[in-house]
Amino acid sequence: MALSSALLEQAVDQLATLPGIGRRTAMRLALDLLRRDLPEVVRFSEAVRNLREQVQYCSECCNISDRPVCDICANPSREPSQVCVVEDIRDVIAIENTHQYKGRYHVLGGVISPIDGVGPDNLHTKELFRRIAQGGIKEVILALGATLEGDTTSFFLYRKLNEAGVAVSVIARGISIGGDLDQVDEMTLGRSIADRKPYQQSIKQ
Amino acid sequence: MALSSALLEQAVDQLATLPGIGRRTAMRLALDLLRRDLPEVVRFSEAVRNLREQVQYCSECCNISDRPVCDICANPSREPSQVCVVEDIRDVIAIENTHQYKGRYHVLGGVISPIDGVGPDNLHTKELFRRIAQGGIKEVILALGATLEGDTTSFFLYRKLNEAGVAVSVIARGISIGGDLDQVDEMTLGRSIADRKPYQQSIKQ
Repeated sequence: MALSSALLEQAVDQLATLPGIGRRTAMRLALDLLRRDLPEVVRFSEAVRNLREQVQYCSECCNISDRPVCDICANPSREPSQVCVVEDIRDVIAIENTHQYKGRYHVLGGVISPIDGVGPDNLHTKELFRRIAQGGIKEVILALGATLEGDTTSFFLYRKLNEAGVAVSVIARGISIGGDLDQVDEMTLGRSIADRKPYQQSIKQ
Repeated sequence: MALSSALLEQAVDQLATLPGIGRRTAMRLALDLLRRDLPEVVRFSEAVRNLREQVQYCSECCNISDRPVCDICANPSREPSQVCVVEDIRDVIAIENTHQYKGRYHVLGGVISPIDGVGPDNLHTKELFRRIAQGGIKEVILALGATLEGDTTSFFLYRKLNEAGVAVSVIARGISIGGDLDQVDEMTLGRSIADRKPYQQSIKQ
């Protein structure tokens, strides 16, 4: 694709670096931006730059935050002895939306993925171990995705946390609520049978 | 979705203004940008802003161009009496890639779409009529998409150009080359029968 404009070429190149955006889509996005008023495009460009330039992370849980300590960590009514380990802010939002969890979080910022060159040191693992070392944390709940990378990360954290003498739990895996059995994949269904629990217990909740 | 960061919220809001990007995808893009090095994000942000701020349009054909007159309009070997009217730069690139066309272009910058509030005056139609009035153009080839909006625009231009005494043609519509008949939609197949031409003519090409 030979373009008559280096400016357009550069914008398309940059937009195409976004995950899931190919050159064709990037061109569509660039032409859409071109049709807008200048102040609108400046607002777009600044919002992206400001995010990266001014972003702060909570000094406790490493979540993205505009303050040195995030709202959840600063909230005294959130149980400080319980820490739920998640991949990123989206997972915090998802869990908060359930209104089921009253403890604190720890945001890793990713999962271990050797293919992408992400090891434990590229994640906020040191900060987690530091929090554990400071004492007061009794339970760590691992709430990472049920993927190869998520499982690898959970196993890594389990071994380290176990050494430190903290109780480690992992969120339940099983069939979705409202789901039909014949729609569930074999792995999940197999796991949900292996992880069955007494009926008496399930109706108590 | 309540976010703990206004900076993130603003970036997600802005990314979600892009066509085809919902808030979920916008969040994924924002988190991806956050993981990059600052100079990389600055380059991204600047490329978008520069495009809108510094873009120029060819004074002849209205295509995006870094020079006052684009490479095609400045090329003396391109037939000046033939002008192909297209929607945007993507169509110029697509037609150039066929190596079948040696005339000039006129880029409308869109098509008439009352729903989106786009009328003839929002497009580079005046510039086209000005080129026609200057004389020297014998044929205008309408190469707009075969959509309701494209057809409306073609009809509008046809009436105006016809008044001006220019020959107006439209690119052929029919079955794709290499296509099976049973894969073709009824409208296209019907059109390709109505627009049939003598076999003798078709083998000459």
